[in-house]
Amino acid sequence: MPTQNPAYASLTRSWTRLHRLSHLQNIASWDEAALMPSKGSEARSLALAEMGGLLHELITDPALTAKLDAAEGEALTDMEQANLREMRRAWRASNALPQSLVEAKSLANSRCEHAWRTQRPANDWAGYLPGLREVVKLAREEAQHLAGNSGLSLYDALMDQYEPGMRAAQVDHVFGQLRQWLPGLIQSVQAKQQTERTLEPQGPFAKEAQRALGADAMRLMGFDFEAGRLDESAHPFCGGVPEDVRMTTRYREDSFLTALMGTIHETGHGRYEQNLPREWLGQPVARARSMGLHESQSLSFEMQLGSHPAFAALLKPMLVKHLGAQPAFEEANVHRLLTRVTPGLIRVDADEVTYPAHIILRYEIERALIEGQIECEDIPALWDAKMMELVGLDTRGNFKDGCMQDVHWGAGLFGYFPCYTLGAMYAAQWFATMRRETPDVDSQIAAGQLEPVFGWLKERIWSQGSRWETPELVRRASGETLNPAHFRAHLGSRYLG
Amino acid sequence: MPTQNPAYASLTRSWTRLHRLSHLQNIASWDEAALMPSKGSEARSLALAEMGGLLHELITDPALTAKLDAAEGEALTDMEQANLREMRRAWRASNALPQSLVEAKSLANSRCEHAWRTQRPANDWAGYLPGLREVVKLAREEAQHLAGNSGLSLYDALMDQYEPGMRAAQVDHVFGQLRQWLPGLIQSVQAKQQTERTLEPQGPFAKEAQRALGADAMRLMGFDFEAGRLDESAHPFCGGVPEDVRMTTRYREDSFLTALMGTIHETGHGRYEQNLPREWLGQPVARARSMGLHESQSLSFEMQLGSHPAFAALLKPMLVKHLGAQPAFEEANVHRLLTRVTPGLIRVDADEVTYPAHIILRYEIERALIEGQIECEDIPALWDAKMMELVGLDTRGNFKDGCMQDVHWGAGLFGYFPCYTLGAMYAAQWFATMRRETPDVDSQIAAGQLEPVFGWLKERIWSQGSRWETPELVRRASGETLNPAHFRAHLGSRYLG
Repeated sequence: MPTQNPAYASLTRSWTRLHRLSHLQNIASWDEAALMPSKGSEARSLALAEMGGLLHELITDPALTAKLDAAEGEALTDMEQANLREMRRAWRASNALPQSLVEAKSLANSRCEHAWRTQRPANDWAGYLPGLREVVKLAREEAQHLAGNSGLSLYDALMDQYEPGMRAAQVDHVFGQLRQWLPGLIQSVQAKQQTERTLEPQGPFAKEAQRALGADAMRLMGFDFEAGRLDESAHPFCGGVPEDVRMTTRYREDSFLTALMGTIHETGHGRYEQNLPREWLGQPVARARSMGLHESQSLSFEMQLGSHPAFAALLKPMLVKHLGAQPAFEEANVHRLLTRVTPGLIRVDADEVTYPAHIILRYEIERALIEGQIECEDIPALWDAKMMELVGLDTRGNFKDGCMQDVHWGAGLFGYFPCYTLGAMYAAQWFATMRRETPDVDSQIAAGQLEPVFGWLKERIWSQGSRWETPELVRRASGETLNPAHFRAHLGSRYLG
Repeated sequence: MPTQNPAYASLTRSWTRLHRLSHLQNIASWDEAALMPSKGSEARSLALAEMGGLLHELITDPALTAKLDAAEGEALTDMEQANLREMRRAWRASNALPQSLVEAKSLANSRCEHAWRTQRPANDWAGYLPGLREVVKLAREEAQHLAGNSGLSLYDALMDQYEPGMRAAQVDHVFGQLRQWLPGLIQSVQAKQQTERTLEPQGPFAKEAQRALGADAMRLMGFDFEAGRLDESAHPFCGGVPEDVRMTTRYREDSFLTALMGTIHETGHGRYEQNLPREWLGQPVARARSMGLHESQSLSFEMQLGSHPAFAALLKPMLVKHLGAQPAFEEANVHRLLTRVTPGLIRVDADEVTYPAHIILRYEIERALIEGQIECEDIPALWDAKMMELVGLDTRGNFKDGCMQDVHWGAGLFGYFPCYTLGAMYAAQWFATMRRETPDVDSQIAAGQLEPVFGWLKERIWSQGSRWETPELVRRASGETLNPAHFRAHLGSRYLG
């Protein structure tokens, strides 16, 4: 039977092919980080680059252009229209950049990132600077191509790749509010916590025991082990494919909390992927909505649930089972451990309260950098000033724990950082909505009944994939668009309540 | 600088691309067998099939035909000519089959193999037969296409895919000789061993201890763990890519020898791959020569070295270290365990002496089947008769441990079985050559100096890749073409000496 929408049908076949080939790309990338021995590195990079080039060829095939135009005129269902919108978005992003820029970026980014691996431990800002300058130059060019004649600013054009529809004007607005009350909140929480006595867990904690503990925590959080795995890598992440989610974590024998809470965090990403709309998998409309929405899931798991006052009671029996009993595992103490606020230099080690300060600082710097208001050599002084202002810490001369600590900029990722804190705000908004709709949700959590929370997230977020643009998804899920008041209320009630 | 050989240069770029994309295919296939959770199966099959189709598209690109012809007229070095010969061979194999047959085969083979997984345990020959008939029908068609007007017989055309250049006439000759003396040898060895007292190792042997033992054995055998891994799978194999070899094994807690010797076997395959000519990797000339040659490496490791009278002394300290001391680990007893000959029904469990009987039987049946002298329904009676004649065991009515035991036929693999015993013969020939050239090689082995053996194999086999056709490679390595007398002498001296 001939389809009534031949152009649209042909597009779905092209995207199915992209999905299947990307599957191999994703599994091989996960393997590269989690399992690959060192001498496999060069061949793997070449294989992944070959596939990257092939995928780029497929999505820049001129035949797609006419089909996208033709499909606009076909009689599509709402879901098909949403799928076509997402196809167009992916197509536009891939076709906006000339091949020469794609290649120059790939080379400059991987050179700079590779050098960073040794320059960072050596605190070698001067060595890092020339490579970073090249990366920034190309990111500005990329932004110009992406912005095109869309009217987007350079920074918006980059951020739109990770958080479609989000604009710097809105980020300015919500981060601007945050900036007003966050330093004060950090100080108040620190003052309050100074009077608390918290017992340190006594290690060492064997890796095998931590692994079993992490797997139990993942089961508690509903991870489907028949559709995914947990392994180890230097930098924890959630990769693989929706049908086979590959999470990683990292163990330290002197401390189990990092791996445990990191695992719970990645489980949020993992369940989002495992519960994307299955009947549409392979099509762009079935993809996770955005990086901010993704982070809202990992932070719903790690912070909203994991640091919930009732969660320590759910963790305690697992800690005792896998690590043995000790006084530090008493519920109240576990909760104190999970909510301890300690301003520090390193973003990835930051607690829930100070984390947004690290993000605001990066957002302000990277936006100015992309828009051309500052140059790379201005970064350290700005970093120092903002760290002092926002977190109260002196980073002068300490590049490795300062502006060289993240891989993002060296790897050419600009416009990504805001997603972390947007995710924290969305997560607070989801839980505020749940409490409004189901007033006893906190008692359910306290009773270990997490299913209602997961069910809410599945219905409102996971199963929606990319059906709606972000503001509409947020409005449908919570009755309003992004409202940072919920995040402020959440931090206030958890840390000063 | 324009190359002087534009057609050849363009071909090398095409094959480099095939190599890089196959890399992802190989890693994802290994992952499927070793790590993938069950629900990932469908998406992985579709992804691998998509890539299989893409690789087939690339190698059947009509543009290659003209380039292969043009390159024949270019001024190529010897190595380039060998590479072109191997390109032509790969190209011919892929272009010989019409796309409709490739698809029909893929479907029939995977259906039959899938059904076999439940039919074999149920001893359900009648249920298996219709699927097998379809597989055989398509294999005969495949053979006709592959034979074309080359003058090859149908069976030769299939076998040539795995053991290029080998012909049934030569296999008849060497297996015909073997068939004369093997049943008698089996009986003599059994009679001799009846008087031996062998202590059984007392388990259980924890998996972790076996894993560490296997890793030590791999180190002894020179495996480069920076360029490969050992993991687990239901059916042990050696996969991955030359730059990153992925071996698997399977552990049984009641017996450690299967996993240990299986690991040593796969290490032979692994070192061949790890030591293929590096500067040519990606080109067909750098691939392993053939399945028989590959098996000659795994059997050099498992049988020539692993069951060498001096090898037990090298194993003993590792056994004691990982499994604890016990009387069964005394050297002489370990050697008896490694050389015990027990005629049995199952090929994959067979010892070095009875293994060739299993192969001769399969070769005779599959050759007659492909050439149309018998049909699938004739297999069980022939199997029963040949098992009685060659191994002295009754298999009537026992299909699951008889003609249904192997995955090969159901999966459409005909012409592969001879490679196992050709490999055993080549391995014996390599060691006979080493002894002729280096009379003290056995004392070196006894002293734990295995480097001279590995050096010989690396120089004569591994580093040669596919530079020479098999008979020439064998002649250069050992001074003569395949000579089964060495295998007879090896078995005689090891088991009756």
